[in-house]
Amino acid sequence: MRPQVLIIGCGFGGLEAARALRTVDVDITVVDKTNHHLFQPLLYQVATAGLSAPSIAAPIRHLFRRQRNVTTLLGEVTAIDAQAQTVTLKDGAQLRWDHLIVAAGATHSYFGRDDWAPFAPGLKTLDDAFEIRRRVLMAFEAAEREDDADKRAALLQFVVVGGGPTGVELAGTFAEIARHTLPGEFRRIDPRQARVILVEGSPRVLQSMPETLSERAREQLAALGVEVRLGARVTSIDDQGLDFTTAAGAERLASRCVVWAAGVAASPLGRTLANTTGCTLDRAGRVVVQPDLSLAGHPRIQVIGDLAAAQSHAPGKEPRPVPGVSPGAKQMGRCAAANIRRTLRGETPQPFRYSDYGNLATIGRHSAVVDLGTPAGPLRFSGYFAWLFWLFAHVYFLIGFRNRFVVLMDWAWAYWTYDRGARVVANVASPAHDAPAALHPPAG
Amino acid sequence: MRPQVLIIGCGFGGLEAARALRTVDVDITVVDKTNHHLFQPLLYQVATAGLSAPSIAAPIRHLFRRQRNVTTLLGEVTAIDAQAQTVTLKDGAQLRWDHLIVAAGATHSYFGRDDWAPFAPGLKTLDDAFEIRRRVLMAFEAAEREDDADKRAALLQFVVVGGGPTGVELAGTFAEIARHTLPGEFRRIDPRQARVILVEGSPRVLQSMPETLSERAREQLAALGVEVRLGARVTSIDDQGLDFTTAAGAERLASRCVVWAAGVAASPLGRTLANTTGCTLDRAGRVVVQPDLSLAGHPRIQVIGDLAAAQSHAPGKEPRPVPGVSPGAKQMGRCAAANIRRTLRGETPQPFRYSDYGNLATIGRHSAVVDLGTPAGPLRFSGYFAWLFWLFAHVYFLIGFRNRFVVLMDWAWAYWTYDRGARVVANVASPAHDAPAALHPPAG
Repeated sequence: MRPQVLIIGCGFGGLEAARALRTVDVDITVVDKTNHHLFQPLLYQVATAGLSAPSIAAPIRHLFRRQRNVTTLLGEVTAIDAQAQTVTLKDGAQLRWDHLIVAAGATHSYFGRDDWAPFAPGLKTLDDAFEIRRRVLMAFEAAEREDDADKRAALLQFVVVGGGPTGVELAGTFAEIARHTLPGEFRRIDPRQARVILVEGSPRVLQSMPETLSERAREQLAALGVEVRLGARVTSIDDQGLDFTTAAGAERLASRCVVWAAGVAASPLGRTLANTTGCTLDRAGRVVVQPDLSLAGHPRIQVIGDLAAAQSHAPGKEPRPVPGVSPGAKQMGRCAAANIRRTLRGETPQPFRYSDYGNLATIGRHSAVVDLGTPAGPLRFSGYFAWLFWLFAHVYFLIGFRNRFVVLMDWAWAYWTYDRGARVVANVASPAHDAPAALHPPAG
Repeated sequence: MRPQVLIIGCGFGGLEAARALRTVDVDITVVDKTNHHLFQPLLYQVATAGLSAPSIAAPIRHLFRRQRNVTTLLGEVTAIDAQAQTVTLKDGAQLRWDHLIVAAGATHSYFGRDDWAPFAPGLKTLDDAFEIRRRVLMAFEAAEREDDADKRAALLQFVVVGGGPTGVELAGTFAEIARHTLPGEFRRIDPRQARVILVEGSPRVLQSMPETLSERAREQLAALGVEVRLGARVTSIDDQGLDFTTAAGAERLASRCVVWAAGVAASPLGRTLANTTGCTLDRAGRVVVQPDLSLAGHPRIQVIGDLAAAQSHAPGKEPRPVPGVSPGAKQMGRCAAANIRRTLRGETPQPFRYSDYGNLATIGRHSAVVDLGTPAGPLRFSGYFAWLFWLFAHVYFLIGFRNRFVVLMDWAWAYWTYDRGARVVANVASPAHDAPAALHPPAG
């Protein structure tokens, strides 16, 4: 019987690990909670109705159809046993493994305030994206029906908490929708009066970027009409809005559409692993791994991607933490696969080394910031060419030729018309929609 | 103040009526329960993962963005008052009208057995389509996890109840998915072993078609591997399958995926109208209208589309019932608009006359049946050219250039690769998925 490799999670890390084991004489089982691999960097486009879900999600078993040593299972892992070398699925089924790669990723964290979740959804899954899309579009619909000026103003106030790449992308796109997509379609409100406010705890947006690019991003957000509040600490969120404090004092923003893009917490499988292996978790719940991505005392268990607190070990340099971005996860996936191959050959696993090709974020139409590492030193630029670079980089890395093509067509269309093709809400039922609302009689 | 025209429902009838009033000096309010106009003839493609939802659904207010006399409101009408000339929305708001067009359409009917609904979803809305897509794809996923041969066989049995156009399209596409799309992607099951059974109460499929075309459709279904049971009466449906009787006796089909394409019932707004106007409803709950589509004694209320039991009044011919197809609804919409214009000018409303351009249905790749009325008599054909004709007719009538283009690209891709791009399930939670299931250990 060939060695059994079990991979939990088919995000960027898990997918890359399975692919890198293509020519290795092992049986691979990939278990994921969903039936699709999600191209997360473009998920905000689904949330903002620019792309349809199938454009950025590919069925996992379709991706592996030609890789005969992979079996795909839809299932949720609830327990891991390091001694018995098994995992248990939610339905009670057990899977045995000789090598385990845990790539279960991360979810959003409300920093202990999970009671905020219903009022400020995060953006990690397609369901999250549909929920945000629904809230944004339904807020405009409710405003069109609303008679009371104050209530209308509150409905047209959109708040994004968190100024990382996702928060910046969401806020920029909300502003674009209000200013360019929707005007002309409403008769009782002017969507351009919508306010988009980005609330960030630190003193600048895009903290992982150099300071000059953070500043450019802030300028580009302002040009799009996004109000940015820096150094803000959120103190409460409810169904009517949120409170926060800044150096200027306390502020309350009435809003029916708050989006949470602030905190990330590792998958609860980290805790499960700690229970069975005694491994250490960091403050964000991530699993502290050995230089070769395995767990101390458990060389056959590797943790990769957002669930791993991993270090990059470049020869002759101090170890440096690996950032939580997709190239990091993919590189860890390849490293984990290579180390399994080495182990099977009786060789020594090698430490992980992260190659940093740079960092990019988009803000809206024609605006992005790019920070590339080149042999000649860092290359930094922003604006129109940064936006083109961002666009082609993302389309290039999309899984599968067809999706790339569909996405490119959708964007070309959106570019010329300002239209957003996916403005469709399957189920409009929501607190905002069901709440009683006065309605003026049809205007004369 | 200009006359207020209120249109309830923005399907084919309501949309066409509002458009036909473009140049008339009235204020139009279009109220719909959803935010999109749905191109229902292609909804089965969303249910079978061939198209994404935004490809066949256009935001209503986007369709009316340039028609300045239309206000779009998202809302559900719960009451109509013919004397006060108002309607009430679910949130309590009231809208006044001078002319009312009710185009609320139809829903599925379980012939008094609404308890079957959870086990056999119908196909009317995007939510329905997503639910069917989920059940079909999750049945294959559960089969891949299932150890027991009998349970596996039951999971791979798909039943469609109803042999009208929708039932035939669904059954044909299910067979195509099992035979062409999925093989090669599973490791423990062979999707080609899936059975698709079409259960129809009458002695033939596509009853609205001439008998020869019904026979051709039956042959084409058989060629695709669909088993057809004619003259079948369903006696029970539960979470494990369904029972029916035919001339050959009683039969039980174990299945976890039964789809209901059998019965149509008019919108409950028909009953509401009957209560306030005293109008007559037919057996299917449709509103019996006057020759000019208005209600007896209520010339300012018109009922069109699937909610209307309307007759076509061609000069010198007997009145004939209008079939429940989209050209019928669109023509009624234009007639209702024209009659409002006539009324405003002090002219007499004209009776409705239905122009029958024919009837077409597709069965699967390369198979369709077409029945066209031409001045030289009926033109009937089936097979490959019928399929091409069907395809271009549907793409042509899709609302909005962009959707047409996206759909054509999706189909071109699907045609060459047999791939279905929208095989994405946002939320896998389901009875089938959550039920305990044994799992064989990874095959050696």
